[in-house]
Amino acid sequence: MTLREKVINRLNNLTKPVGSLGYLEEIALKISLIQEKELPELFNDKRVYVFAGDHGVVEEKVSAYPKEVTFQMVFNFLNQGAAINVFSKHVGAKVYVVDAGVDYDFDQHPSLIVKKVGYGTKNFTKGPAMSKDDALKSVEYGQKIAKDAINEGADLLAIGDMGIGNTTTATAIAAAFGFNLDEILDIGTPIDNEKLKRKKQVVEKAIKVNNPNPSDSIDVLSKVGSYCIGEMAGFILQAVEEKIPVVIDGFPTTAGFLIAYHIDKKVKDYVLFGHKSKVKGHKVILDSINERPILDLDMRLGEGTGAVLSMYLIEAAIKMIREMATFESANVSKGSDQ
Amino acid sequence: MTLREKVINRLNNLTKPVGSLGYLEEIALKISLIQEKELPELFNDKRVYVFAGDHGVVEEKVSAYPKEVTFQMVFNFLNQGAAINVFSKHVGAKVYVVDAGVDYDFDQHPSLIVKKVGYGTKNFTKGPAMSKDDALKSVEYGQKIAKDAINEGADLLAIGDMGIGNTTTATAIAAAFGFNLDEILDIGTPIDNEKLKRKKQVVEKAIKVNNPNPSDSIDVLSKVGSYCIGEMAGFILQAVEEKIPVVIDGFPTTAGFLIAYHIDKKVKDYVLFGHKSKVKGHKVILDSINERPILDLDMRLGEGTGAVLSMYLIEAAIKMIREMATFESANVSKGSDQ
Repeated sequence: MTLREKVINRLNNLTKPVGSLGYLEEIALKISLIQEKELPELFNDKRVYVFAGDHGVVEEKVSAYPKEVTFQMVFNFLNQGAAINVFSKHVGAKVYVVDAGVDYDFDQHPSLIVKKVGYGTKNFTKGPAMSKDDALKSVEYGQKIAKDAINEGADLLAIGDMGIGNTTTATAIAAAFGFNLDEILDIGTPIDNEKLKRKKQVVEKAIKVNNPNPSDSIDVLSKVGSYCIGEMAGFILQAVEEKIPVVIDGFPTTAGFLIAYHIDKKVKDYVLFGHKSKVKGHKVILDSINERPILDLDMRLGEGTGAVLSMYLIEAAIKMIREMATFESANVSKGSDQ
Repeated sequence: MTLREKVINRLNNLTKPVGSLGYLEEIALKISLIQEKELPELFNDKRVYVFAGDHGVVEEKVSAYPKEVTFQMVFNFLNQGAAINVFSKHVGAKVYVVDAGVDYDFDQHPSLIVKKVGYGTKNFTKGPAMSKDDALKSVEYGQKIAKDAINEGADLLAIGDMGIGNTTTATAIAAAFGFNLDEILDIGTPIDNEKLKRKKQVVEKAIKVNNPNPSDSIDVLSKVGSYCIGEMAGFILQAVEEKIPVVIDGFPTTAGFLIAYHIDKKVKDYVLFGHKSKVKGHKVILDSINERPILDLDMRLGEGTGAVLSMYLIEAAIKMIREMATFESANVSKGSDQ
């Protein structure tokens, strides 16, 4: 029997009708396959890395918030006041904030990892967001961050995002990879229809001016990406290399996933999508790769909030397969479906 | 300001775009209104009550499992081997099993509450499932169980079901209340198409033979209900009376909710629907009362599993409103939506 068959066999012998725990059974199987263990192990060190950075495109006035909110929110993370702090504490995960490219110099802090590629990307409606060298550097930085995390013992990782302008950037990346702009365009923070129209024009202009090559992730990243999305991509690639599952959050982190996925298709086998964001393009992308999100709560905050909340259900799935009795051990009659 | 306005005001001042935590914000508001507190309290004593009973209609061969699985699963609950045990431990909730009408005599057990109305209902294709007196008794028993739980300190309750034949019973109750049988008919445990057709005929016959009165919940309960569903209804009514929130699970527990709801419409303000069951009638009923389930994981197990898993997100919603910083306290600039 293959490992997959062994795990399915065990799932079908637990005291419940076959398949009745639905998607939790698929999650248990996925973690078993990632860990290469018939009985998946519970996690000892869960972490979320919130990649923060500034985006030159905010000059185009595509967000409801001023640019300084990026660094202000970094302080909020470090002071434990943000949603991601509250939810991570609830689920028992540690929060690390990565300064991938915030236009601010932070003092040292035990939860802050400074891997700054620059003080914000350039406005990609006027040319590339960054040089190819900086794009490669952002991926390397992301790999290094994941490597350190795993060396320190992290066994379940999640990624989150913070940066005014990052929904616009993520939209440009998705458009560069061929997604229909009308199907994915949506507000990130609450903006009115006129601002949303401008956002569309901004993305169209970015694609036209830069002409990113969809078969070259680094080209897409350098032209219409950002430092934080590049670091997310590197982070995912490294975690996959070391067979550690990564939980993706909403739309911007899924753009990071897309960059990694177009470099190495096998990343799909190692990631879980924590939730379906209310940003409408998120569902479009997940459907295109046939991936199902765990939670669906109309959230659109980012920071890793959906990813971290879903960790609880991933753990429930593991406990299900580890701790439930089998029909035999519990002396329960099998049904006609067995 | 009304309490509702105060809570919404606080939600809108937390460091996140307005409404960006989606359904979690609605959950926080609902718990605030139930508890009548601007800052809802976290729970100290979470419990799930699994109502077990036998159903005479299993004579009609509508389930994939033999009837003895009902009492065998009660033993599995008491021995901590079932999914509900694993998930309740995960979320920190206590499991109580209620013998509402199992065709078996159990020894005493600290987690077992014996409130047996009888040794299984009658086959409702041949006449009423139970007498009107027994229907009233089941509701009273349910009220007593909730009263005891709340006296002991329970502050978040959930209900689950165990009983071979209970999806058929729940379908008959929904049909009695006017739901279209074709829209709600589905398998509970895995049965083939032929058995599903028989299940439809069984429900049609039950309605025809008994002619339950949809404006009289006790008439519906006695004719096409069951002891466990009657106890669930009483349990919900009592919890609502004492302003303690109740989390409903899947299709059979929602039938218990329907019985209570048709007695007192205000129960809707005190219950949360933990998940959307894969049993297709569940969504139809929830849509009809404009209620949104918290989780959607294609589960169809019952036992309270979906309800208990959702408790974690209810707690996350409370912690969100209690623990997150406000724009002012965190020195974060407000956006143009404020």
